[in-house]
Amino acid sequence: MGSYHKTLSFSTDGNCDMIDVTGQVAEVVEASGLTTGICTVFCPGSTASVTTIEYEGGLLKDFPAAMDRLAPPDIAYEHHLRWGDGNGHSHIRASIIGPSLTIPFVGGSLTLGTWQQIVFCDFDNGPRKRKLEILLLGE
Amino acid sequence: MGSYHKTLSFSTDGNCDMIDVTGQVAEVVEASGLTTGICTVFCPGSTASVTTIEYEGGLLKDFPAAMDRLAPPDIAYEHHLRWGDGNGHSHIRASIIGPSLTIPFVGGSLTLGTWQQIVFCDFDNGPRKRKLEILLLGE
Amino acid sequence: MGSYHKTLSFSTDGNCDMIDVTGQVAEVVEASGLTTGICTVFCPGSTASVTTIEYEGGLLKDFPAAMDRLAPPDIAYEHHLRWGDGNGHSHIRASIIGPSLTIPFVGGSLTLGTWQQIVFCDFDNGPRKRKLEILLLGE
Repeated sequence: MGSYHKTLSFSTDGNCDMIDVTGQVAEVVEASGLTTGICTVFCPGSTASVTTIEYEGGLLKDFPAAMDRLAPPDIAYEHHLRWGDGNGHSHIRASIIGPSLTIPFVGGSLTLGTWQQIVFCDFDNGPRKRKLEILLLGE
Repeated sequence: MGSYHKTLSFSTDGNCDMIDVTGQVAEVVEASGLTTGICTVFCPGSTASVTTIEYEGGLLKDFPAAMDRLAPPDIAYEHHLRWGDGNGHSHIRASIIGPSLTIPFVGGSLTLGTWQQIVFCDFDNGPRKRKLEILLLGE
Repeated sequence: MGSYHKTLSFSTDGNCDMIDVTGQVAEVVEASGLTTGICTVFCPGSTASVTTIEYEGGLLKDFPAAMDRLAPPDIAYEHHLRWGDGNGHSHIRASIIGPSLTIPFVGGSLTLGTWQQIVFCDFDNGPRKRKLEILLLGE
């Protein structure tokens, strides 16, 4: 049994920009040399999340539309009184979708479905530099 | 420290069919021989999720009703333009609820609450064969 | 590689009371003596959840307001027919937000963002004694 840690870095456009990180996470699993275990993908930050989705153009419009219904950007948020940065909806979405995802790997491969990709969702209201912490445990 | 992997297979009716898999997951923990660690339950697929709920008849109606409000089946989804399979709402629900759940086990037992069951939710719009990947790490 | 288990206990007011448990979880990581691995925070119960948020006064009002939109307390729930305890909305919120969170730790510290706290959300409709199960695996 052992552990393997890697930090991924990338840029996003914000406003529900969805980044497919499946390939990068799979590369971390391969580089680890581990064959059976779990891979935790964690977003350090309070305005972005990690989940899975079928990464295709239709859903890349449907998911942001669903987020607009779930936490509309144009209603009042008390958070705005503190920072004046207008991203109350970003925080609410991030807390609902959640910052962490744990995926088993077996035979050296993540047990994702054929049409299932790991997606980083940046809910903040502008471009940002982002990181994802990848931590593997296994043997 | 060691790992233990098991794939569960079952059939579902779709349309927010909720399957109580607590007993099967507990059997995997027992079969593993591990006593302290974590159990990851992962759904390979983009139209279903795993969460916990008090598995009783009332909530088995209330949760689907909540999903109908969260991602209504009868609104327009861009996803439908790609595949024409009419399950845009299924994908959105799956991405919001999420595909993975990690539960500690101590003394050989999952640390679930008395009224808390592990539930597989099939959001797709018809019957399907489904799998769940169970991966345990512990000692 | 080793494991470390700790049960946290505290009191809550219910009704979307949000408790910042970041300090207590960080103490468990420190007490474990482990430096690299993952920390699972699990809520045993079906009317509460764990997630992360920027723990500041504005969002402590915005998140409950979002939960009131997501699962209103004043609509009909079939669950009420079973127990008559009026907390159908509590169960629905708990199943959507989810009971578990897994956070990597590296160099003995959780990889949380600067403005990101671990928060226990009690969705039930009155004060309760609550527990959180913390399970670390690592080396």
